[in-house]
Amino acid sequence: MIIDKGLSPDFINDYLKVCGKYITFAKFGWGTSAVQSRELVKEKIENYKKYGIKTYPGGTLFEVCFSKNLFEEYLKECKDLGFECVEISDGSMELKPEDKDYAIKQAKKAGFIVLSEVGKKSIVLDSELEIHERIELVKKDLESGADFVIIEGRESGKSIGLFDEKGNVKKEELEILAENVDMDKIILEAPQKNQQVEFILRFGNDVNLGNISFEEVISLETLRRGLRGDTFGKI
Amino acid sequence: MIIDKGLSPDFINDYLKVCGKYITFAKFGWGTSAVQSRELVKEKIENYKKYGIKTYPGGTLFEVCFSKNLFEEYLKECKDLGFECVEISDGSMELKPEDKDYAIKQAKKAGFIVLSEVGKKSIVLDSELEIHERIELVKKDLESGADFVIIEGRESGKSIGLFDEKGNVKKEELEILAENVDMDKIILEAPQKNQQVEFILRFGNDVNLGNISFEEVISLETLRRGLRGDTFGKI
Amino acid sequence: MIIDKGLSPDFINDYLKVCGKYITFAKFGWGTSAVQSRELVKEKIENYKKYGIKTYPGGTLFEVCFSKNLFEEYLKECKDLGFECVEISDGSMELKPEDKDYAIKQAKKAGFIVLSEVGKKSIVLDSELEIHERIELVKKDLESGADFVIIEGRESGKSIGLFDEKGNVKKEELEILAENVDMDKIILEAPQKNQQVEFILRFGNDVNLGNISFEEVISLETLRRGLRGDTFGKI
Repeated sequence: MIIDKGLSPDFINDYLKVCGKYITFAKFGWGTSAVQSRELVKEKIENYKKYGIKTYPGGTLFEVCFSKNLFEEYLKECKDLGFECVEISDGSMELKPEDKDYAIKQAKKAGFIVLSEVGKKSIVLDSELEIHERIELVKKDLESGADFVIIEGRESGKSIGLFDEKGNVKKEELEILAENVDMDKIILEAPQKNQQVEFILRFGNDVNLGNISFEEVISLETLRRGLRGDTFGKI
Repeated sequence: MIIDKGLSPDFINDYLKVCGKYITFAKFGWGTSAVQSRELVKEKIENYKKYGIKTYPGGTLFEVCFSKNLFEEYLKECKDLGFECVEISDGSMELKPEDKDYAIKQAKKAGFIVLSEVGKKSIVLDSELEIHERIELVKKDLESGADFVIIEGRESGKSIGLFDEKGNVKKEELEILAENVDMDKIILEAPQKNQQVEFILRFGNDVNLGNISFEEVISLETLRRGLRGDTFGKI
Repeated sequence: MIIDKGLSPDFINDYLKVCGKYITFAKFGWGTSAVQSRELVKEKIENYKKYGIKTYPGGTLFEVCFSKNLFEEYLKECKDLGFECVEISDGSMELKPEDKDYAIKQAKKAGFIVLSEVGKKSIVLDSELEIHERIELVKKDLESGADFVIIEGRESGKSIGLFDEKGNVKKEELEILAENVDMDKIILEAPQKNQQVEFILRFGNDVNLGNISFEEVISLETLRRGLRGDTFGKI
C-alpha cells in the first residue's frame, strides 16, 4: 500500500509502467483527495485501476465526515469518485466502539473493501494504547467485517504504533501481535527502510506493508527478493 | 511559496493540474536558474504563469551578481527571462544597509515584485542576529519598498531563523516578531511539517509560508483546512 | 553519478532536459534493474544514452549473480540490455581477492567500463575496514583494470566509508586517502549536501561524486559553481 499525497495524473501513468504490478492499494493520504478537483481524483483512480490497484481516501477524511454527520454522503461520494475501498479509523477523534462497528458494517454493505485502522495520530494518545488493547481493537474490527486492519505508523514511522522514537521496531510488542492475530489480515505501516527489512525478515517477503512512499516501491521489491544489501542472502 | 530546485517542464505542467491553485510564488532556489538553459527557464516560467504563479530566482543569485557589480545586468536578465519578482537578500554576503535599500528601490523601479529576505545562510552568523535586530531589518526593507519580507529558514529548517537545532519553533521569538510587524507582509520559510502546523495554528490558515517542497503542497493545503491529524479539529 | 531507484521512462526524458549534461553515470541502484521489465530497462538505458550518460546495474546484482555462479550470464545480460558499464563489488558477500581480480578482468575483456567498489554494506563489517586496507583494496582494483573505484557511502551516507554516524566526513581518513591514491580514479559516494560541500571544497569543483539523488543534480551543480550559500565565495 502506497501513499499518494498529490501525485500528478500523467506521472502516475508513467510511474505505474515501472512498478504498477507491485502495488495492491493506493491511499490518497489523509484528506488529500478533498483538496484536488473531482475530475482529477476520478482520472487518477482510473489510472490506478488500469493496473488493478485499488484506491481509497485516508481515514482522516472519513473521520472529518463522520464527525460532521456526513457518513452517508461520504460513502456516496467515494462511490461516485470511483474509490473501491474505504478506511475506517479513529486516529484523530474519539469513536465509540459501536460507531466503528457500525461504520465498518455500513461500508461493507455499500460494497466497499474495508480497511480499518488501529492507532492514534497523537504521539501522546497513541503511547497510551497498550499492545493487548491494540490486539483487542484489531480483533473487534475483523469481527465487524473489516477486510484488513492497518497498524498505524504515520508517514514518519516514529514514536507511533510498533515504533520507538527512533523508528526502531519494538520487537516484544511485535511478537505479541504476531501470536494473537492473523498477520494475513494485517497491514503494517512501515515508511522507513529498516522497518520494511525487519518485517520482511520476520514474516516473510509477502508481508503486507503500508505507507510506502511512491519512490520506494521498487526499492521495497528488491528488499523482498534479497536484491539489496539489507536482505541479501537472508531471504 | 515553493522551491523549484530543478523541476522538469512537462512535469510542472502535469503537477500544476493537481496543486497550481495553491501556489502564489515559485522560487528557482538559490542559483539553480543559472545552471539550466535559458530556453528551459523561460519555458518553466511560462508554465507557472499559466496558473498565475509568480516566479523569481533565489536571493543567492542576486548576491552573486551584486557582488560582481552586475546588478543592472541581473535585473535585465530577470526581465528577459520572464521573472516577475526578484529576491533581495544578504544571506551569504555583507550588504550595506544603503545597498540593500538601493537594490530594493531599483528592483521596484524596474517593475518587479520585490521579496527581501532577512537572515544569514551560515548557522554561526545567523545565530548572532538577535530577534529585535531581525525586526529592525524587516521594517527597514518594508520602508525601502519590499512587497514581502522572507524570514530565512533554508531548505533544512534547522538552527536558523526562528528554528532551533531540531527544527522546533522558538516561540518567544515568534511572539516578539508577531507583536512588532504586520504578518501579512511576512513569508515564513517553513520546510518542515511541524513548522507549518505551528504557524497555521498561531496565525490562521492563510499564513504566508515559504520553502515548501513541491511534494508537500497538497499536504500543506490539508493542514490549512484541518484535513490532516495534526490540525484536525483545531482550525 | 546518480542513483536511479525506479525512475519512470517519460519522466527521465523530461528530467534530462534539465540536468542531463551534468550526469556522467546513472546507476540502477542495487538490484532494482532486475525487478523492472527488460523492455523498460532497455528503454530507460536508451533515454540516458541520448545524453551521453553511461548506465550500469548496482554492484549487489553482480554479487547475487556471482554467488550463484551466473557471472558469465550476468555479463551477457548486461550487454543485451544495453548497459555500458558494470560494477564489481563485494559489499554484501565475501569475495576472494583473486575472484574480484578475475571479475574485473573478465568485465573489461567483455568490453565494459568497470567501476569497482570498496566497502561493506554492513555498518559493523565496514567499520572493521581500516583506511590503509581500503587504500590497498583501491590500488588492487585499479591494477586489475578498474576504470574507477567507488568509495562506499550507501544511500544514507551515515556510519559508512568516510562518514561517521552523523554523516560527517572523517577528515583524517580522507587526507590519508587523498595522499595515497589518484583522486581522478575515485568516485566518492556523497548522498548528503554537507558531504558534497566538503569534497568540493577539498578537491575542487570537478571532484567525482556518486550516489547523488536525482532530485539533487541541479543543486549539486550550483554547489560546484559557488551558486549556493554553502560554497558562495569559496570556489
